[in-house]
Amino acid sequence: MEIDPWSNRLIENYDKLYSEFGMKQIDEKISAKLKKNRYFRRGLVAGQRDFDLWLAAAEKGQKVAAMSGIKPSGEFHMGSKMTAEELIFLQRDFGAKVFYSIADLEANADNGLTLEEGLRNAVSNVADMLALGLDEKNSYIWLQSRETRVTNFAYLAARRTTLATMHALYGEKNLGLYFCTLTQAGDIVLPQHPDFGGKKHVVVPVGFDQDPHLRLTRDLAAKFDLIAPSSTYHVFMRSLDGNEKMSKRDPMNLLTLSDEPELAKKKVSRAFTGGRATVEEQRRIGAEYHKCVVAELENFHFEEDDKKVEERKGKCLTGAILCGECKKEVCEKIVNYLKAHQERKKKLVSKAEKLLSKE
Amino acid sequence: MEIDPWSNRLIENYDKLYSEFGMKQIDEKISAKLKKNRYFRRGLVAGQRDFDLWLAAAEKGQKVAAMSGIKPSGEFHMGSKMTAEELIFLQRDFGAKVFYSIADLEANADNGLTLEEGLRNAVSNVADMLALGLDEKNSYIWLQSRETRVTNFAYLAARRTTLATMHALYGEKNLGLYFCTLTQAGDIVLPQHPDFGGKKHVVVPVGFDQDPHLRLTRDLAAKFDLIAPSSTYHVFMRSLDGNEKMSKRDPMNLLTLSDEPELAKKKVSRAFTGGRATVEEQRRIGAEYHKCVVAELENFHFEEDDKKVEERKGKCLTGAILCGECKKEVCEKIVNYLKAHQERKKKLVSKAEKLLSKE
Repeated sequence: MEIDPWSNRLIENYDKLYSEFGMKQIDEKISAKLKKNRYFRRGLVAGQRDFDLWLAAAEKGQKVAAMSGIKPSGEFHMGSKMTAEELIFLQRDFGAKVFYSIADLEANADNGLTLEEGLRNAVSNVADMLALGLDEKNSYIWLQSRETRVTNFAYLAARRTTLATMHALYGEKNLGLYFCTLTQAGDIVLPQHPDFGGKKHVVVPVGFDQDPHLRLTRDLAAKFDLIAPSSTYHVFMRSLDGNEKMSKRDPMNLLTLSDEPELAKKKVSRAFTGGRATVEEQRRIGAEYHKCVVAELENFHFEEDDKKVEERKGKCLTGAILCGECKKEVCEKIVNYLKAHQERKKKLVSKAEKLLSKE
Repeated sequence: MEIDPWSNRLIENYDKLYSEFGMKQIDEKISAKLKKNRYFRRGLVAGQRDFDLWLAAAEKGQKVAAMSGIKPSGEFHMGSKMTAEELIFLQRDFGAKVFYSIADLEANADNGLTLEEGLRNAVSNVADMLALGLDEKNSYIWLQSRETRVTNFAYLAARRTTLATMHALYGEKNLGLYFCTLTQAGDIVLPQHPDFGGKKHVVVPVGFDQDPHLRLTRDLAAKFDLIAPSSTYHVFMRSLDGNEKMSKRDPMNLLTLSDEPELAKKKVSRAFTGGRATVEEQRRIGAEYHKCVVAELENFHFEEDDKKVEERKGKCLTGAILCGECKKEVCEKIVNYLKAHQERKKKLVSKAEKLLSKE
């Protein structure tokens, strides 16, 4: 086991994923087709498996799907937002049908949330998806706890999965988490269920830490005569203190789409930057842009214009701007974004409720 | 691990179940209330857990349930028939609502059957239940693959179950079987789901080999604030060669409710008896009644009249009857029974189909 999908640790050695685990980089040929999306354009989505095959299928006009999910253990944060926007981009620009799993069974196994608590969070999460631009008419959203096509696959897959495989992929974990990985595999292959038109190319945009799930599912797909899912890997949004990946496990270091603007302001003002010990020093040699979480927030989420990002980077590295001023500017963008998002979201909650109702 | 629920081996040492694992014997006080049922009357149901509590609740007029299930991996055999008739007896005489699980997920994990194959067998199994006298109006029958209340419980339970517990109860098994045990626990607690009126006393009639499942479920019930299920334990119907417990794993040594009368005759004529090496010897010292599978078939299944069973036993032990003659007599009873049963069953297949339709 090299990566633990349930930990907050940042991955220290990405190279091994490429050299030993068969991941490929997003090369120029691929990224040329995806320039409209800032994650791809800025190299924030950096790894892939079989994404070239997926793109080829989409370009040939075949029915393709983009699949991801969320553990409904809290509000949508800046990490989940990356996956969500990648899905929505692939839906808009490539006509991909979006499959989105609410992993309430995993939220229980991993975080102890009841299914009812999971459902409450899920409504908010789905409303966020809609506010981010998901076209629900070309989507299928489900709760694991209600989707027997997913859980049945997990049972069928369990028979063909040894404990040794589980240990190798995930280390020593409890039975519930092992079973959740098989359930995730069920989520990932659901778009290929006969009810959805059978075998097809499916891409799963995830963070690098989720790769073990993809490796497991790709092996299972072969056993069940399905097309191995493609995947893309984005780098992590870091926690506000810069120490870990952003995660619901650490709510104080999290920026969410539901944060009140005032709270967001406070959080960002305390976020870790690349500032120097003294003003004098910073003016003289510039700050450490690559260490700054505030810059990361802008670059990942709150500035579409590449030139403006580059401008700030230049000012930062040359000491032309200090952290206080910079934070104020980025904060304003964040607050404006959150206000507009929350305004949109408010009108979409009842639609989200309806999408998640048992009907 | 002392007992393996997935093996065909006969249990060699019942005492340990009582002395070390907390099982109790069915004492005179309990069996006095159950004389109408030949299994209880003849001591074939010999062990129990908290069955006194269940009886007390039933006698007080509380809503009680009797729960069991079948792995739809083949036809109903003489072992499954024991459980079925116990359920039906408790339904008739104590007003218990019957809960009956079609363990199609386990049939896949354990036997590799697809869910479609499981469903086909299930229709026949349920038709057998109806022909045996199940009142479907006071019953709930489900397929594990469609009952998320059951599978969701398995997930919730997995979080609270360590691999060490699984090893201790079941030994080294694959992930699928481990998960099936938690799914069975979900089956067993389903009668206590709010949708069925919440907490209640539930008795689970099983063979002795299934006790690990009960121990697991009783522990889980405590964790989920449910009433620990009661259970009764019947001795095994042996395979026709007398070497193992009767099991679908060994179809040549199986007598099923669907066997054509001619086939049944052939099978019984080859069954293991307690006969002596020579006629002379048998006439002189009698046969070994306790070893005879044919006698077991009569005693377990095909003769309601205790006196007639005792008569045959007497004749056998004194050498007054030889195995050939005896087999012929028992065979006739079996054939008559099967003919009548199959006649009844034929008319109930479409009702079984309806009970198992997705509606």
